[in-house]
Amino acid sequence: MQPKVGLIGLGLMGSPMGRNLLKAGFPLTVWNRTRAKSEKLAAEGAAIAASPRDVAAASDVLITIVSDPPALEEILWGKEGALSALKKGSVYIDSSTVTPGLARRIAAACAERGADFLDAPVTGGTWGAEKGELVFMMGGEKEVLDRVEPVLQAVGKRFFLLGPNGAGQTVKLAMNMILALEVEALAEGLELVTRSGVPAERLIEVLQSSMGRAPVLDVKAPVIIKRDFTPSFPLRLMHKDMRLALELAKENGVELPAGAAAFAAYSAVKAAAQGDVDYAAIANYWRKN
Amino acid sequence: MQPKVGLIGLGLMGSPMGRNLLKAGFPLTVWNRTRAKSEKLAAEGAAIAASPRDVAAASDVLITIVSDPPALEEILWGKEGALSALKKGSVYIDSSTVTPGLARRIAAACAERGADFLDAPVTGGTWGAEKGELVFMMGGEKEVLDRVEPVLQAVGKRFFLLGPNGAGQTVKLAMNMILALEVEALAEGLELVTRSGVPAERLIEVLQSSMGRAPVLDVKAPVIIKRDFTPSFPLRLMHKDMRLALELAKENGVELPAGAAAFAAYSAVKAAAQGDVDYAAIANYWRKN
Repeated sequence: MQPKVGLIGLGLMGSPMGRNLLKAGFPLTVWNRTRAKSEKLAAEGAAIAASPRDVAAASDVLITIVSDPPALEEILWGKEGALSALKKGSVYIDSSTVTPGLARRIAAACAERGADFLDAPVTGGTWGAEKGELVFMMGGEKEVLDRVEPVLQAVGKRFFLLGPNGAGQTVKLAMNMILALEVEALAEGLELVTRSGVPAERLIEVLQSSMGRAPVLDVKAPVIIKRDFTPSFPLRLMHKDMRLALELAKENGVELPAGAAAFAAYSAVKAAAQGDVDYAAIANYWRKN
Repeated sequence: MQPKVGLIGLGLMGSPMGRNLLKAGFPLTVWNRTRAKSEKLAAEGAAIAASPRDVAAASDVLITIVSDPPALEEILWGKEGALSALKKGSVYIDSSTVTPGLARRIAAACAERGADFLDAPVTGGTWGAEKGELVFMMGGEKEVLDRVEPVLQAVGKRFFLLGPNGAGQTVKLAMNMILALEVEALAEGLELVTRSGVPAERLIEVLQSSMGRAPVLDVKAPVIIKRDFTPSFPLRLMHKDMRLALELAKENGVELPAGAAAFAAYSAVKAAAQGDVDYAAIANYWRKN
């Protein structure tokens, strides 16, 4: 029998994940802060629960994917929070990007209720979510991952088990810091050449046949050149992930000199941005936008 | 008839370039500050000149590749410098990494003597130099590049003509700043995960199937994990290139926040380094080495 799946958080990532779970035939119960998003999925077969608590009570496998630590804490420990209703023997998978410390606190709370926990932030963007090809960075027990893998196969294609609870979030924060710095490096390089009289396209041409080539730069270079910053991965979320990475670094006494400098630049662009922009808008750092 | 080629600077890059020019059948005259290196090439057929001036006097195509702007200025304008003997109608190609401003000064001096100039810094490392597969980033006239391309084919495989004199150096400085920042990002990510209790290998595993993957990181990740910093591209040269990039940025009023922060980190590692190390030794930033 198919396990009953619960899904909390129906944003840009959660909605297509829910759709893929329904397509794969899993009975699905959903909850979202804004009810309209739940209704879209209800039209495709999902049951709408009245609260996070009710989703947990109805689920063998609970998945959450929300924007930041406070949103997650509210869903878990807030009024009618999910944790208090988690079923014994169920598995809770959090795909939000939060701190490893929070992931470990959740794992402990799950253990008290006889449930298992996986921290499982994802990469692959909305495109990966829609295709069911997300990559999961996971912390937890192999045996628990094995139990839920049939469910996760509906939404993802690769599942990296990186260590005990917290390891998924640790690697995710480091990965996003690396991506943010790569795009920062590209933006700085482009600004340097254009302000020195060389067209941006000339640098891209050389970069693409160099050791520095990266898929993220192949994607973001034309975005920066066209200055069309329609969000694919919103700058506000990248900024939040960088903040969490720097908090984790501070907790562990690690200085991240370029990461900290890039964070300040992303902060300046975030403060000046009109509306929601992609993180490639870091290229606006040198403009009054 | 084969043009007579002159080569000044027989370091890690210049020596294999000279060898490839000889193999391709070009009559070659060389000069190097340390004579021993010239003698190795002489054993393979090169003529040794007594001074940079004598190399220029003997050459239709002159190539220089030395470590920094002062070394280049000495070779060109110093006692028995090359510029004063440059033949009318000859082509001078500088493959050192220097500033675009110096490249333009050299171009003007060449023009006064009726010679043409290409700024032509390279990438591809000693491996590319040995294989004759260097990539050239060039500034100058297309017609001049066409004339010397048969010579350059002996040492390189791609020739990017990026604009007027100075454009090659501009793109090279931006490219190396990007590479330095990419390796800095990797080092910071690795330090963050390991100090947070996750093995370095776990981050690499995820990075290699991510949008952040880059050939330079594939190469430097194992170097950092094994902590074997035998120089492939020496940190002291990357540090010099970053300094030149920041000088160019300052000249043009461009702030490079992450570049400046990474430069400070490279400076600290350079100051503490014992002997010559690869630039991946930026991972020593968090150690007393």
